[in-house]
Amino acid sequence: MTKIGIVGASGYSGSELLRFLVNHPGGFNVALATSETYAGQHVDRVLPHLRGFIDLVFEPLDILSLKERVDIVVLAVPHKVAMTFAPHIIKQGLRVVDFSADYRLYNAETYQDWYDVAHSSAELIQNAVYGLPERYREKIRDAQLVANPGCYPTSAILASMPLLNNRLVELDSIIVDSKSGISGAGPKPKDTTHFPNRESNLVAYNIGKHRHTPEIEQEMSAVAGETVTVTFTPHLVPMTRGILSTVYARLKQPLDSERLLEEYRTFYNDEPFIRVLDDDEYPQTKSVLGSNFCDIGLAVDKRTQRVVVMAAIDNLGKGAAGAAVQNLNLMFDCNETDGLITPGLMP
Amino acid sequence: MTKIGIVGASGYSGSELLRFLVNHPGGFNVALATSETYAGQHVDRVLPHLRGFIDLVFEPLDILSLKERVDIVVLAVPHKVAMTFAPHIIKQGLRVVDFSADYRLYNAETYQDWYDVAHSSAELIQNAVYGLPERYREKIRDAQLVANPGCYPTSAILASMPLLNNRLVELDSIIVDSKSGISGAGPKPKDTTHFPNRESNLVAYNIGKHRHTPEIEQEMSAVAGETVTVTFTPHLVPMTRGILSTVYARLKQPLDSERLLEEYRTFYNDEPFIRVLDDDEYPQTKSVLGSNFCDIGLAVDKRTQRVVVMAAIDNLGKGAAGAAVQNLNLMFDCNETDGLITPGLMP
Amino acid sequence: MTKIGIVGASGYSGSELLRFLVNHPGGFNVALATSETYAGQHVDRVLPHLRGFIDLVFEPLDILSLKERVDIVVLAVPHKVAMTFAPHIIKQGLRVVDFSADYRLYNAETYQDWYDVAHSSAELIQNAVYGLPERYREKIRDAQLVANPGCYPTSAILASMPLLNNRLVELDSIIVDSKSGISGAGPKPKDTTHFPNRESNLVAYNIGKHRHTPEIEQEMSAVAGETVTVTFTPHLVPMTRGILSTVYARLKQPLDSERLLEEYRTFYNDEPFIRVLDDDEYPQTKSVLGSNFCDIGLAVDKRTQRVVVMAAIDNLGKGAAGAAVQNLNLMFDCNETDGLITPGLMP
Amino acid sequence: MTKIGIVGASGYSGSELLRFLVNHPGGFNVALATSETYAGQHVDRVLPHLRGFIDLVFEPLDILSLKERVDIVVLAVPHKVAMTFAPHIIKQGLRVVDFSADYRLYNAETYQDWYDVAHSSAELIQNAVYGLPERYREKIRDAQLVANPGCYPTSAILASMPLLNNRLVELDSIIVDSKSGISGAGPKPKDTTHFPNRESNLVAYNIGKHRHTPEIEQEMSAVAGETVTVTFTPHLVPMTRGILSTVYARLKQPLDSERLLEEYRTFYNDEPFIRVLDDDEYPQTKSVLGSNFCDIGLAVDKRTQRVVVMAAIDNLGKGAAGAAVQNLNLMFDCNETDGLITPGLMP
Repeated sequence: MTKIGIVGASGYSGSELLRFLVNHPGGFNVALATSETYAGQHVDRVLPHLRGFIDLVFEPLDILSLKERVDIVVLAVPHKVAMTFAPHIIKQGLRVVDFSADYRLYNAETYQDWYDVAHSSAELIQNAVYGLPERYREKIRDAQLVANPGCYPTSAILASMPLLNNRLVELDSIIVDSKSGISGAGPKPKDTTHFPNRESNLVAYNIGKHRHTPEIEQEMSAVAGETVTVTFTPHLVPMTRGILSTVYARLKQPLDSERLLEEYRTFYNDEPFIRVLDDDEYPQTKSVLGSNFCDIGLAVDKRTQRVVVMAAIDNLGKGAAGAAVQNLNLMFDCNETDGLITPGLMP
Repeated sequence: MTKIGIVGASGYSGSELLRFLVNHPGGFNVALATSETYAGQHVDRVLPHLRGFIDLVFEPLDILSLKERVDIVVLAVPHKVAMTFAPHIIKQGLRVVDFSADYRLYNAETYQDWYDVAHSSAELIQNAVYGLPERYREKIRDAQLVANPGCYPTSAILASMPLLNNRLVELDSIIVDSKSGISGAGPKPKDTTHFPNRESNLVAYNIGKHRHTPEIEQEMSAVAGETVTVTFTPHLVPMTRGILSTVYARLKQPLDSERLLEEYRTFYNDEPFIRVLDDDEYPQTKSVLGSNFCDIGLAVDKRTQRVVVMAAIDNLGKGAAGAAVQNLNLMFDCNETDGLITPGLMP
Repeated sequence: MTKIGIVGASGYSGSELLRFLVNHPGGFNVALATSETYAGQHVDRVLPHLRGFIDLVFEPLDILSLKERVDIVVLAVPHKVAMTFAPHIIKQGLRVVDFSADYRLYNAETYQDWYDVAHSSAELIQNAVYGLPERYREKIRDAQLVANPGCYPTSAILASMPLLNNRLVELDSIIVDSKSGISGAGPKPKDTTHFPNRESNLVAYNIGKHRHTPEIEQEMSAVAGETVTVTFTPHLVPMTRGILSTVYARLKQPLDSERLLEEYRTFYNDEPFIRVLDDDEYPQTKSVLGSNFCDIGLAVDKRTQRVVVMAAIDNLGKGAAGAAVQNLNLMFDCNETDGLITPGLMP
Repeated sequence: MTKIGIVGASGYSGSELLRFLVNHPGGFNVALATSETYAGQHVDRVLPHLRGFIDLVFEPLDILSLKERVDIVVLAVPHKVAMTFAPHIIKQGLRVVDFSADYRLYNAETYQDWYDVAHSSAELIQNAVYGLPERYREKIRDAQLVANPGCYPTSAILASMPLLNNRLVELDSIIVDSKSGISGAGPKPKDTTHFPNRESNLVAYNIGKHRHTPEIEQEMSAVAGETVTVTFTPHLVPMTRGILSTVYARLKQPLDSERLLEEYRTFYNDEPFIRVLDDDEYPQTKSVLGSNFCDIGLAVDKRTQRVVVMAAIDNLGKGAAGAAVQNLNLMFDCNETDGLITPGLMP
């Protein structure tokens, strides 16, 4: 039994991880759940959907004694915080899955440019593996530090990997227009998450400056083998969960949608969580609600020779906690799909 | 392996049953899924969340040859239709779980009064067991025909059983004010389910004449051992799933909420799917979203000596397909909780 | 031109009052809008829907110099705060419309019981008129201090006045089950208003202890000429605006819905903002969205001899700012309907 | 008093026009409202928000006698139907405002290509003026037949006119990614508008083949003075009203957002319904809910030298009925803003 400690377990990524692990067939045991806000309270009173499933009390973090309690630590804390925790944990010989952005960028300067702060444990970056199994499966198995991907990047990268890998599109033509539910902003109430501000409302934000941009570009570039720069526009739509990313790119040569779908099916042939849809079928976020699936569909606009690829994920599922379970499964020799073979909740 | 046939499997109750069975640890195999609308189409193309989970094609119903295909039939068709199917199925020696209202009322005249049609197979009513395990667990095990309870009745009956059983309230004082998501109306588009009519909108319907009323009264009366008549008001709220029933009753004598909760805890002590909340904790539908749980909380209004009990269920979960799985587990000697130990999807 | 000062104009009641006044045909001029949070910012930058409509900058409150700026003050601040402001304003000879609860209850002890604080300006209560024109129209015209009614009470009282006035129901049988959008909680983000907590979710709150209870009882008692005690249960539904109150009462003698509707039509015959619906027609909140209307419908449950009356309002319209405009019109000899003859926004 | 006849007045565009006209200060009188579905029923029973505002009964269409009843006909019927009605109406000497797409395209062949049917009254196209006052104000005044613009095109064209007019972007680089509430699909229930299919869900549709594409291209080309081809992707988001169009284009030369906003402010300087936002301010659909405004904001992604322009409208307001009122005002010498100076409904 691998003992898991979740640091920041009352946040949305952390609590969703708890929910996924409840359904896990075995191998993992959540031995520690920390929360500064709810320290001393029963997990299943704070998270009423988990009532009866978890017999744990939230504890404050005692970072130096984690080794005595757990075998692996999942950091579900904000960026900038994670990079102050990770070194202490790794020093104890524990492995880490980090939900934050702190170890996703291979270049500490890029981190500083986008996150407005110097990286405080840049030396660990080389130990980190970007936790996208569809790309780094083997490295993840042995990684000491897994940087769980961002939600938007997961959708954007999965949507475009076959195009980039097979050099089908012009690299300077890529636009990622993403639409997201609000749960990505976390459980702490703020203006942006205030119900009357989001209900029946639609707005873009952080155009050209969202911090997921360099992450998208880093991985797209790695797949393409060449620097890729994208325009990334996130939007907030009135729903709690779900991201739909619509990716635009100019085809190098005319290809029809059936042919492109064939490329996608081949590329993702062995992937258990990527579902390439049929021609004329478009992904919808509800199909993957609460799940670890990523549904991908596409269309070709022949008149402009652009391909439009859409990827739908649950930002808390494949976009966070589902991916983390997939990574944990890889890291601890479980079946990669353990605890994740659950369909979306529809309707 | 028990082979299940689902008649009307493309409706919401039917498809939700498919979703639950996908998570079932074993014992059941969906061998047949019928749909007139989608006959010939792959189940997982019609129900995109199930993509990759089910390798079946919807078939038209061939009622006389069910015996050759399945061991048990789940009828997920509307009332009035179910009672024309059930006799043929039972004649073949097959057991039936019926989602419709056709075999829920013990009295064929009551059925006629509320459903405006004579019961066409009244002789089967005596074979039927009302499929509420919390009340008829043992009878369900051996039942030939299980009448799966209505969604509103499930919430109202579970909310009031301890009060009635222990004779704590005045029987003529009971009011059930229910609020429901719209999925209970099924997948067929109509004015009531039209998005612009429901979004940001709130309305009551069928006051004093909703067909779940006699079902609520029948079971409340059975528990109380005396005729109970209630006022039942259903409302539509802008969400897809979830029912919250607020039940009002006058206490015979002053009792505080802590004491009443103790009665509830005792009464439901061994029930795996009833979660009695703490004092000052009120059930919310999201806690049980997609699950088979029923969360119950209560408050006492001392000034009026009324108790207000709230029960939250997912109308497609404990209010339909979840209950059906629970019943199937009982009927076929599985663990009663198999396939159902899944928390709600929150946030 | 009457100069209006709105204290707390960036809150929802205050900003909705601004929106209504923009549509007012004349007579009023908003000369001052205060906001501590947004002091120094342009009103139409903080409230983007009003862009281009209002050329004012939010100012901090300078309570002692209001007289120099305005003719009437609308207090759109929380209870407990309002009662510290009102005396200073009234001392300057200014009239006041108060959105808070501080002057709604005639009895300072009742106030203290429900609001957990002694009333700090109880001497003003006698100057106050409860601002429900349907009941106190003439008194409002000359009032120095109008206590604008609460949103839930407005719906509950309007729903039941004809029943109480005509002594048609048993007074100890009244239950008010209200369902509300979340905007009543104001613009300040908190757990309750956090989008993921409200979307697709349904919950009751403050049963038997919501502070609108004594207000409902006070006015129901006044109409009945006898003490009325009610059970009041508010619920939060996933929408921004709108209240639907479902009021239950036992009829003293059998009456059918058509007859009862006739009583309602007669009672509200001259009321410009009460719309009594037809038999078998139930009010929906969207019909009154953004408006000052209150739609009322009813049904009789003959089996239990209960009447079920439903009233729908926009909590920010007839439940707050619309009512305030109606009161201002009365106080300053405008047509009572000026600025308010606008239909709801549907679909 | 100009007598208006609305053909198809029970649809969303038609009923929204009724709502706008109710607020109109004068000049227009709705003398006829036709509806095949609701013929014989009172308008304000079918449209409950209008209760008390309109004393009309829906009538079946008697197209040959319109002249006796009205001065101007608004066609609020689907495309393909409108072009069979318009010739009869124009023959009677009546002017027409047409909500459908039938007279928006100057080229009957383009119409046939996109609408899969030959234009049955192509001879009228030359009489038609595209009803976008921001571009064709003067022509509209005297037009016999005004083709009211589509909702998506209104947002896309208004978002890009200054860029095109001033030749600031590369014409082959334009992508329009639009997100819309569902009310554009009309009041007739269908799978797409079924609440459970839209709530908490997000999906694209008709990529590269939506019929608004040639309309967008026609007007963009006209402004640019050169053929413009765009990729247009519409999405459905879980809300009833509102369109946000995000338009991407490559800048010919580096320009910052403040400079571009200045171009927009200059271009739209005299426009009463275009609100150009400040730098770093992004339009949201709720700001224009129920109104005739179009809010426009933009950002420059310097790294890719793309401009991202966003335009928010209410699809039933500026995207349909509001625009129609604006056109009617122009056609009948009212103030262009009559009946339209109403802010959006927020929150």
